[in-house]
Order: sequence, then C-alpha cells, then structure tokens
Amino acid sequence: MRYGYFDNARKEYVIDHVNTPVPWTNYIGVNDMCAVLSQTAGGYAFYKSPQYHRITRFRPNAPVERPGHYVYLRDDDTGEYWSISWQPVAKDLEKAHYVCRHGLSYSRYLCDYQDISASQTIFIPLNEPVEIWDVVLKNTGDRPRRLSVYSYLEFSFHHIDMDNQNFQMSLYSSGSSYADGIIENDLYYEENGYQWFTATFEPDGFDCLRDRFLGTYRDESNPIAVETGVCSGSFEKTGNHCAALQKKLILAPGEETRLAFLLGEGKRDAAIPYRKKYSDAKQVDREFQKLADFWNEKCEKLQVYTPNEGMNTSLNIWNLYQSEVNIMFSRFASFIEVGGRTGLGYRDTAQDAMTIPHSNPVKCRQRIVELMRGLTSEGYGLHLFQPEWFDPELQGKKQSFQSPTVVPTPSRAKMIHGIQDACSDDALWLVASVCEYIKETGEISLLDEVVTYADGGEGTVYEHLMRILDFSDRQVGKTGICKGLRADWNDCLNLGGGESAMVSFLHYWAIQNFIELSEFAGKKEQVQKYAAMAAKVKKACEENLWDGEWYIRGITASGRKIGTHLDQEGRVHMESNTWAVFSGVADEERGRKAMDSVDRYLYTKYGLMLNAPSYTKNDDEIGFVTRVYPGVKENGAIFSHPNPWAWCAEAKLGRGDRAMKFYNALLPYNQNDEIEVRQSEPYSYCQFVMGKDHTAFGRARHPFMTGSGGWAYFAATRYLLGVRPGYDRLLIDPCIPKDWKEFDVKRVWRGAVYRIHVENPDGVSKGVKRILLDGTEVFGGVPVQPEGTEHRVVVTMGK
Amino acid sequence: MRYGYFDNARKEYVIDHVNTPVPWTNYIGVNDMCAVLSQTAGGYAFYKSPQYHRITRFRPNAPVERPGHYVYLRDDDTGEYWSISWQPVAKDLEKAHYVCRHGLSYSRYLCDYQDISASQTIFIPLNEPVEIWDVVLKNTGDRPRRLSVYSYLEFSFHHIDMDNQNFQMSLYSSGSSYADGIIENDLYYEENGYQWFTATFEPDGFDCLRDRFLGTYRDESNPIAVETGVCSGSFEKTGNHCAALQKKLILAPGEETRLAFLLGEGKRDAAIPYRKKYSDAKQVDREFQKLADFWNEKCEKLQVYTPNEGMNTSLNIWNLYQSEVNIMFSRFASFIEVGGRTGLGYRDTAQDAMTIPHSNPVKCRQRIVELMRGLTSEGYGLHLFQPEWFDPELQGKKQSFQSPTVVPTPSRAKMIHGIQDACSDDALWLVASVCEYIKETGEISLLDEVVTYADGGEGTVYEHLMRILDFSDRQVGKTGICKGLRADWNDCLNLGGGESAMVSFLHYWAIQNFIELSEFAGKKEQVQKYAAMAAKVKKACEENLWDGEWYIRGITASGRKIGTHLDQEGRVHMESNTWAVFSGVADEERGRKAMDSVDRYLYTKYGLMLNAPSYTKNDDEIGFVTRVYPGVKENGAIFSHPNPWAWCAEAKLGRGDRAMKFYNALLPYNQNDEIEVRQSEPYSYCQFVMGKDHTAFGRARHPFMTGSGGWAYFAATRYLLGVRPGYDRLLIDPCIPKDWKEFDVKRVWRGAVYRIHVENPDGVSKGVKRILLDGTEVFGGVPVQPEGTEHRVVVTMGK
Repeated sequence: MRYGYFDNARKEYVIDHVNTPVPWTNYIGVNDMCAVLSQTAGGYAFYKSPQYHRITRFRPNAPVERPGHYVYLRDDDTGEYWSISWQPVAKDLEKAHYVCRHGLSYSRYLCDYQDISASQTIFIPLNEPVEIWDVVLKNTGDRPRRLSVYSYLEFSFHHIDMDNQNFQMSLYSSGSSYADGIIENDLYYEENGYQWFTATFEPDGFDCLRDRFLGTYRDESNPIAVETGVCSGSFEKTGNHCAALQKKLILAPGEETRLAFLLGEGKRDAAIPYRKKYSDAKQVDREFQKLADFWNEKCEKLQVYTPNEGMNTSLNIWNLYQSEVNIMFSRFASFIEVGGRTGLGYRDTAQDAMTIPHSNPVKCRQRIVELMRGLTSEGYGLHLFQPEWFDPELQGKKQSFQSPTVVPTPSRAKMIHGIQDACSDDALWLVASVCEYIKETGEISLLDEVVTYADGGEGTVYEHLMRILDFSDRQVGKTGICKGLRADWNDCLNLGGGESAMVSFLHYWAIQNFIELSEFAGKKEQVQKYAAMAAKVKKACEENLWDGEWYIRGITASGRKIGTHLDQEGRVHMESNTWAVFSGVADEERGRKAMDSVDRYLYTKYGLMLNAPSYTKNDDEIGFVTRVYPGVKENGAIFSHPNPWAWCAEAKLGRGDRAMKFYNALLPYNQNDEIEVRQSEPYSYCQFVMGKDHTAFGRARHPFMTGSGGWAYFAATRYLLGVRPGYDRLLIDPCIPKDWKEFDVKRVWRGAVYRIHVENPDGVSKGVKRILLDGTEVFGGVPVQPEGTEHRVVVTMGK
Repeated sequence: MRYGYFDNARKEYVIDHVNTPVPWTNYIGVNDMCAVLSQTAGGYAFYKSPQYHRITRFRPNAPVERPGHYVYLRDDDTGEYWSISWQPVAKDLEKAHYVCRHGLSYSRYLCDYQDISASQTIFIPLNEPVEIWDVVLKNTGDRPRRLSVYSYLEFSFHHIDMDNQNFQMSLYSSGSSYADGIIENDLYYEENGYQWFTATFEPDGFDCLRDRFLGTYRDESNPIAVETGVCSGSFEKTGNHCAALQKKLILAPGEETRLAFLLGEGKRDAAIPYRKKYSDAKQVDREFQKLADFWNEKCEKLQVYTPNEGMNTSLNIWNLYQSEVNIMFSRFASFIEVGGRTGLGYRDTAQDAMTIPHSNPVKCRQRIVELMRGLTSEGYGLHLFQPEWFDPELQGKKQSFQSPTVVPTPSRAKMIHGIQDACSDDALWLVASVCEYIKETGEISLLDEVVTYADGGEGTVYEHLMRILDFSDRQVGKTGICKGLRADWNDCLNLGGGESAMVSFLHYWAIQNFIELSEFAGKKEQVQKYAAMAAKVKKACEENLWDGEWYIRGITASGRKIGTHLDQEGRVHMESNTWAVFSGVADEERGRKAMDSVDRYLYTKYGLMLNAPSYTKNDDEIGFVTRVYPGVKENGAIFSHPNPWAWCAEAKLGRGDRAMKFYNALLPYNQNDEIEVRQSEPYSYCQFVMGKDHTAFGRARHPFMTGSGGWAYFAATRYLLGVRPGYDRLLIDPCIPKDWKEFDVKRVWRGAVYRIHVENPDGVSKGVKRILLDGTEVFGGVPVQPEGTEHRVVVTMGK
C-alpha cells in the first residue's frame, strides 16, 4: 500500500494519505532556527540547540504525537471547525481532502473541505530566526463565508527535561503577555528566554494560556476557543503558554485571501520589523524563492540520469537532502532522539562531514575543525561533546547567573574523558573526511591550519591526523589487531579489552587515505613511515582475522574469536567483511569469498542484516548486542549505515550487479508501495529495518538522523556511478549492472561543470576504456578545468 | 464553588464533581509498590523508585493528564462505551454520574450510566507488590445486558527520561507477551525488568501493544478495540506496551458481578499465586480491611476533638495522612515532581522525620539513620542522596551489566559534594528529629548507636549531632552569624558568602534541643559546652539582626542587610522572624513586635506570605528569588512550609487567637467551597498559594509533597493543642483561642492511652492551672504510664 508519491519536478514528496502508520517528518530551517514537523504538522521548533533551547513543545511517543504548528479554521455560521493540517482536529478523511507536501526545508499542508480550499506553508527564511506560516484560503463555493482563522502552538520550557519532569520551577518561571498584536513568551529566569509570535493582521482575539485556549479536559482536537469561536484574551506570569491569534474574515465566492503567522526568537520588539516586512506577501514569496534557490544550487552540484529511477530520485533530491540535514542538524533533532542530546557525536559527524563536501563545503569544513578541536593530544576523539566548549571565540562567555535551562559548560576535567570512554573508531573516520574535503575543494592549505587539542596544546591539522593514526597503532592487543576499547562503530559490541577486526581494517583504510594525501602534499617521510605502518596492519589482519569463508568480527578479552564458522549465533558480521574488502586489506580471492558470505548469510530483500544469526543468549563478553532483541537494531537488523560499505566493497570487486542488488534492496523509494510493511517515510533512509529474525521483518525505523544518509550518497555517487574527485583530477570509475547501456552525470567540481555521459557498449560492470574531455582523450581521470567553464565528458566502459 | 466534601466516617474525601480545575491526587501503597492517581484515575505506579522503576506511564503537564489505570465498559448491544473513572472517555457529566472517593491509600471510582452501576477500587495490599483493581458491576435496569469490560494501562520504560526522550534504545528493548491469562511486560536489558498483569477471569481478548489497542491516530478516549468490541491479540518484542484484558459478560436485571485486575512486579510466574488468591473475592476484602486497620491504628494514636471542625478533620485524618505520605514516599512522586528525582533531600526528610514519630516510629527511625549516614564527617549533610549508597547491606551489589534504566551508583567522589554545595540548614533539622523520636519512643539508646559518615569513619548518633552543631559554629561570617553557604531553607535566597539570620536562629534552636537531650542523658560536659555556644549565638543574633520592628533576613557577602525597613522590596521575611521567636532567641518584647510585623505585612486570608513586598528587580546578590515572578513560590507567595513556624511562634508568645487566625487561613479545608480560587485539592496542604502580588492570588499548587504537611501537624498538635511528649512526661501546654471552652485529645504514648480533656473556664489562650491524672494532680506534665493502660487526664487552663 502506498501513502504518497514523489513529485520530482517540485522536489517534493506528496503525502495524499495523511494517516501514515507513523509520523513522516521533515526538517525546516537551514540555520539557527529549525523545526522538525510531521505530515500532520506535529512537531517542534528550536533555536540553535534542540536540547537547551526548544521553542515549541512536543509530546513524543504518545498515541498521537502532538502538539504542533497548527492553524484552525472555523465556519462562523455553522460553528464547525477543522485544521489545515489533518491533525489535530482529524476530520473524517472520507469527507475532507488532505495533502501534505514535504519539500526541501519546507512543508505545505493542504486541505479542501466544504468549499474552502486552504494551505499552510511552513518555512524559515535563510538568514532570519523567523518561522513563517504562509496561509492561503479560498472560497471555492458559491456563497459568502464567514470564517475564523486561529493559530496554535504550545511554547516549551526550552529544555526537554523541563518540559517533562519536576515542574517546580518551570511552571512558575514561564510567562506570557500580549500587546500590539504580538504575543511574547518569557522564560523569566533566562537571559535569552524570549520568543514572540505575531501575524500580518490585527487579531480579533488571542490566548496566551494553553489551558484557557484549549479548556480543561480538552486537548488540541477540540479547543474551547475554537468550538465557541471566542478567545479569552488570557495571559499570565506562570503556567503553560501558547500562541493563539484569531482573525475573523469574510470570503466572497471565489475570493482568495492570504495571511501569515510569524514565530520568532527574541522579545516583543524583535517582532515589529518582521511583522512589517511580511505584511507584504511579496516578501514572503521572495524569501521562499531564496530558499528554493539555495537548494537548487546544492542539487545542481551533482545530478544523475541513470536507468534506475529510484536511484535518480534519491541521489538528485532526497538522499542529498538527508545528508545535508545530518550535517546541518548534527544528529539529535528528530521524533526519536527528540533533542534529548545535543552536541557532536565524534564518529557520526566525522562520517557525515565526509559525504557532501561538494554541496556544503562550508559546513563540512566547520565540522572538521570542530572535530579537530575535540581530539585529545593522545589521538582519540571525545565521543560526544559540544563544539562550543572548544570554540576560541566563546571562551569565558557565560550567563551571569545559574539557571537550569542554559547549556552547561562542564569543567575541563569532565569534558575530557579518559581512554576508558574512548571508542576505537571515532577519530579514524576523520582522516577520510579531511581527504575528501581537500579533494573536493583543493584547499590543501587546510593541512597547515593550527588547531587546538581538547586537552591543551595545539598542532596543524596534518599533525592531528598523524596523532589519530598513531593512537590506533599504539592501541593494539596481543595479536596486533586494534583494541575494541569502549566500543567500535557498533556501540553494542563491547569487546572491552578485546580486539576489533573492523577497526584494524578501518585503520588500514585511514592510513591509505593519509598516504595518498601525503604523497600529493609531497611529504615523503610520512609516506614512508605510514606505508610501513599499513604493511604491519595488513599482515596482522591477514594472519589473525580470516576464518576460511569470511573474516571474523573480533576477539574478546579472553581470546575468544567472534564471528567464526563455529558460532551458532553471530556467525557472520557485515562490518568486518565489508571493511576487509573496501579497505584494500583483502586480496581478490578472500574478498570475493567474504562478500559472497555476506550475500549468502546477510542479504534480504530489504537490505543486508548486520549479523546473522541474531544473538538470543545474553553474553556480556560479546556485549550489549546480546541483550537486544533478535532482528532489532544492532542484533541482526538490517542496519542501514553499513549497507553502503557493502556496495563499496562490491564496487571494489567490480561486481556491479550485486552492488546494485544491495543498493536497490535498501533504497527507501523501492518500498514506496509497501508502506504497510515499511511504515516509515520512503523518502529517507532509516537507521534500521527489522531483520528476518523479527516478526516485523521489513519495518523501518528512525528516518533522517542516520549515517546511512551520507554513506548511501557517498557510496552510490563515488563508487557505483564512480564519479569522485581526486586531488588533481576527477576520477570516473563506475561499477554498474551489466545491462545498463548508459547513464549521465552532471557534476560541478572546483567551479567547473562536467556533463558526463557514460556508455557501456560491452555490457560490463567495471572498467573504463576511454574518457573524452570535450572530444579529447584524457587518461587517469579528468584534469581540473578552469572555474566557470563547462565541459562534455564521454566515458566508454569496457574490457 | 465546591467539588466535593469530607466523609470523615469513612476517612474519605468524596469528589462528586470530578471535573476539578486541576488533577486531585491520592497515594496508593504504603510499601515498595506505590501509585499516584488522580480523581479520574490518571497517574502512574512505581516499584521502590519513582525515578528508576516506573511501572506505568504518565504524560504529565499535558492538556489532559493521561494515561492512567483505566477500566472501560462497553454495551455490546449498542456499541456504546464509557470508563468507570470519568477519564479517559469523559462522558457528558449531565448524563453520566461520576464520583471519586479518595481514601487512605486507596481510591474508589464510581459510575452510574444507563442502568449500569460500576465501581473500581484501586489499592495495594500492605505487604504485596500487587495493585488490585476491585471492580463491581451491577445491572440496575430491568433488562439483561451484554457487556464487555476492558482493563487498560500503558507500561513505562521504567525511567522517566527513557519515557520522554531518545527512544533509540527503549522502544527496542521493551517487549510483551501473553499466555495463560497473564500479560508479561519485559524491559529486556534489565535484570529486573518485568511486570505482569492479569485478572481473576479467563480473558475473552487481550492486547499488549498500545498502538494496536488504541489504533493509530486515536488515544485513550476512543480505543479501536473498545469501539469495535474486538481486541487484536497483539504482542511484540519492541514497541509501546499496554495491559488490556477483555471480558464479555451478561448481567441479568439486578445482577451484580465482581472481578479483579491485578498488576504486579516480576515475571509471568509471579502472577500465578496472586491470580489464584484474589480469584476469591473474600481475599480482596480481607486485604482491603488490613489496609483500613493499618490506617486506623495510625490515626488512633492521636485524635482531637476541638471546636474547630476543620482542624479536627485535618489532624485526625488528612494532615496525618499527608505527613505519612511524605515520610513514606520521600518527596519526589507526584504530578509535579513526576519522579524525575529520587533519594532523600536532606532538609526535607529531616523535618518530615520529626513530625510523626508517634504514628510511624519505624520509618522515622529509618530516615534518621539514613540521614546520619548521609552526614559528612565535617558535619554537613549531603543535600540530595540515595540512602542505598550508604546502606552497609547493599555495598557492592550491582547488576552484572550496564543498562540505562538502573539506579546508578556514582563514584564516592561524586557522592560527597564539597562545602560549596552544602546548604547551611540541612543537617541542623536533624537534631530535633532525633530528640522528638526519643521523646516519643523513649529509645535513648539510639544515641549510642554507631553509624558511618558518608565520607568515611563512624561515630555514635550523639557524636553525629555534635558535629552538626559544631559545623554551624565554625561556619559563621564576620558578625558571628551563620554563613548562608549555597542556600539556607530558602533555596532561592543565595546570600552566598553572606550570612543567614534564619540559620543562626535555627542553630540556637538545635542547640537548645541538644542541651535538653544531653541533660536527660546526663552528659554534663556537653551541657556546659553547648550552653556557652548557645549564649554566643544568641548574643550575635541580638546584636546584629534586630531592625527595630522586626528581624532582618540576612547579610549579603558585601555586608548589605536584607529585609530592613529601608528596603522597598523584600522588606519583611517570615523565616527569620518566626525562628527568632520560636527558637527562644527573641525576648518577649522583640518577639511580639516581630510577630506583629509578620501579621501586618505578611498576613492574607489564605495564609502568610514568605516575604513582602515581592521582589521585582533582579538582584543576584540577594539570589535567584529575585528571578521568580512576584507573588509566586519563594518570592512573596504564601509558602506553606514556614506558616506553621508562625503558629509555633505565636504559641510561644501565648497569643492563641492570632495563632488560630494564622492556622485557619492556611487550612485547606477552609477553601473547600472556594475551589474556583484554590483549584487544588482541599484535603492536602499545598507547597504554596499565590500571594497578593500575583493575579491568581489564592491559587494553591503542589499538594502532598511539601514540608507544610508535617509541620502543620507538628505545630497544631504540639504547640496549638499543646500535647507533646517530653523525655519523661507528656507535656500539655495549649495555646488556643480565648473563646474555646474546652477540647479533647486522645493520645497514645509509649503504649499507654491518655484521654485528655482540656477545660478553659477563664477564657485564656495559654496557661495551665492544673492537670489531673485519673483524678490525681500531677505537675510538669503527665509521667509515663505503663504500657497497655488507659488514663483520663483533665487539664484546666487559666491564669
């Protein structure tokens, strides 16, 4: 069953069955102010931090997830009322027609009911901390209509904990007031505790107190103020606050009207210029267009035209969008994380920053520098930290008094956790992120930039990279394989004092990246040193990790091997096998065997499972993974993040059909008509899909905030389609299904446009016979072309 | 307007208008398993810890507070359905008759609708971790009825944070199953993560998955399973879980049936014996009667019969109940705290333990010992701590693996906060608690019991007391007045490096208590030493704290006096003036003046305000109180906790009319017919009532969990009615309104019953002319009588 479709011309996903099995979310805002909203306008907004500066309230994981950013309509002749988004009034879908269009950084809610056609478009202008609700109403009937329009949102106490527990302070430090058409919300004990809400009209009524607008023993589905048509003009110091503004209007037959509600950060005064500006609807249109331009520009950096329509839709719009959302929002604003955390997760951000330097070089560079500052001088990253802690410009800035909602700055001793809390993989990812950034931008000078270490001292970016590699070189166990430390990429695999196969492969990959970088930068001494390190790592891997048909996953502290043919549970693992191949450690024979085992044991029609069979017996030597239900999350689910590693591995092996089989299995687009199974949105990769060992096999969970976003984009564009920048040329080395005859890619790289046409006359999966640049053959990729120029590249595959 | 009435014969408060302005709560359970439930059965249950082992889920501070412990009824002929408690279906109150009876540790919900009379009584047997829903249904009509009965509750992920944020783990570690009529809920990653739910019948249907029982885009008000009459038999590993059991039955005209639902702690097997036991309704009755006996015994320890009916109702039932709830539950389980904290607050628990040693000596003693263990060797108490940390029997016990829902045991270094986090009053309260406990029980040997200090070492209880007094003796400022440290009793008055008048008065009072104790224990050396300390404290107070008409509140670090006649805001404060008098520091003249100022500046018809005028200007030298809205909480509200201090002070001054004026103003009973103002339950003191400087003057907030419970009971029984134990005699020294002709008190003390009749022929407020014990005059109080005996005491007041 399907609930919607892709409208690629508008870069929208259109939900025409709004009663999706679970909320289908979208991300509004690309800068300081952001909102996460569902297909029924449920969700929340925040300013800078989803943990410490939540603006609107959201009650997650409730039977119906509310509240949201709602507009009610009321027929003042009949008293009947509804909402422009289906929730919260939830009119019978047989009688009212509802559609939600999720676009790039905006959502549009459309409703047709009783000859009133209404839309509410929510977006946040590029550089303003203002959420705009652009509302259009049209009388499509043949008699005049008297209507009331109401806004409604509930203000948060800023901090998620304050919203949910111990209301001893929050309820009594939160106040509201109304004046000059503007509602002000005030968290009295914060210096920056203010928001405003206004509209482009003179309100005919208002309520600032939630419980007065809704009425006792009522909720968002039947507010007393809407039911009766009369707001109570409430406000108070203390209590729960909302932003309800009412406008009465008359629409003649065929008449259309437009108005806007505005939510902003700051005191009442801050609202005045925005209210004035957006009272001119052309300004609304202008800012909306700017946002569209912003996204068009990003998308146009890389467009693909392949025989795989799902792949085109994903890479050209949604997968890029998801990758951007991850790098913009970090990982903690969603309906699942709900902003209960903030800051940067080291490994996640490092990987996110690797994947889209072409569309967001500024943010990728910012993240790289933040992560460099979060590196200890010993060479491991702080697993989770606030970049503000180490931002030289913010040192010493503090609110003048303590209050519970402000971002706490812990003492230095608490920031810098010891090696007992270090994860063995965290910083290794950053090596490739730096390399990809430089390959994309050519900014080799980044290597010489001096950055502090979290625990004191400083060094160049290049020196930071060496400390990362040297740390892993030191942190090895008896066999020479890297220690697992607290955990590796798999948080639930706590080999503890044991060793992680995956991390040694990852270490090898990072070293290879570093050697290539050093070669380009002319650092011969380092090339030599790290080539020796790589050889040592490879030897240790090949001697200790091969099991005959696949690579093991690790070795416990007691010396027990995990993931061998003798294991009844957790026999084959995805991480070690994909990385053995993609890193280059495995030779061709072992590589093929390993990936054949992955296909044989881990493949399902919804993607590759992380391990199989799932663990069913608790075993604390293996780790917490054995205390997760079979088929769920890290224990035998189709964990999405590592799936693209398998695509990369198969691409490396040149097996394009299998790579595409794996790609298509995971592709959300391909589950669009199977939502009764998938449940989650088909325009976003999810963190995981329930595995075969679970009764809900195929059910996807946790959209957007997952490493699969960036990795899927990275793997598909760079290794399946094979278009990837090198330091001095654009490499084109596809690995595709044999039956693909051709495909096209438009790629902007260092300011020049490359229109690439790939032909596959021999029906191969891999291998490039010839590359023509503007008709002239080039070798080893396409050399950098001057900024502002445009080029035609024709690639012929074959043996 | 009133919403209910006191039914003293049943010790119940009867809510016959169940749509109260805010939830009116009750506390179920007196041991390990507890529930906090509202008049509409909303609320939550927990086992031992409201923070770490929540059993049922609750969404606090929502427009309608849900879910709860619900029973639905459905007419299987018409399809109409409702709930026995008004919520969640919320039938029109014009058509359905709803009543809630809150009793002592149970709540009964009654519903009459369409000729079905139904009741649901929720209680927890004294010594079993089982919550019983005793359901009685009667067909009061004249035709047979086919009905379905459904239970419903939603299981929690145990921890309030897990219920509200970052669902990455919780949603996937929570499972349910059904077998043999029993639902099992399983938090897979906890060793003790199990609950069961069953009923005394064979179910005709069940649902373990919340979202299957409710249906998507529905909530507790309209579950699909109830609407259609068909449960789906759902269960799963992962997701949100509920306990819905369905029973179909036919009731003949006039027929009554009875059934029970049972919620318990443990795995499925644990349910079997309880299910068997309670299938016999007589066992339900027997356990319910045991609970009634338990409370009757407590109440019978002290019963009063005065001309003040509100006082009688309060002291004989509700105020004692509230005090017991505080000592049993600590302070963190309510709809306000919502269990977001756990453990003991040092000062609160110390005061709670002082107030009811007669009705709960075991728990008071336990709390005293726990607090003694939470004392540092330096003499300050740990402001908030888990008693388990220092329980010798629990040392070293730990779950074998880390999981997020288990009570964390921090490192010792984190437990023992330094003096920078010490509050200046915390441990001082404990001195009187020990004295009152010994006076009540005669257990003088407690003083010699050896108890550890939190930071190592050990000493007798008596030695602990000396360290407390000596700490305050050392921690004085320039003028000799005690330092305020992080805060004194008023958490928001952060004089910081400054000095607190209140704490010096409190110190003096504690010393006086200690001297009296030492005298009785024959410790002459200490008597002498601490008498000198007392004299020094008194001198410092009298020289530095008198302002002419009242006592100041403190001195800031910069030497600025707070609470002087020169202050425009925060001119007069309640804490310092009441303690100046009650402690015995103030002489009669100053005492009268000080309390006259309290009456003049702080009195309102709803009680005494904490300070006046309220602060309106932020002033961080005074403290966070200046960042609280005027008239709210610590800034000029009628903060209830210190109100009884004023009654004690007036009693000390012998001004019974004013003491009773103050008493009556705060008494919740007296607001029973003014609920449109009070809003909160009239059977419980609330933490505060909005003060005159707030628009909602008279609105009460935070029932039950407040120090006003114990203190009101303590002050009224011991200082207004004047019946208080000494070390070797029962003192009787009333301070009453002049127009009281007589009153009676029944008091059980050290195993003997004293039936005390007090006559006031001269119309005095204070002064006892004669005490007759069984007809014989005694002097200086009534000497201890043999256990098991009963005595008649006649007291004649007069000059």
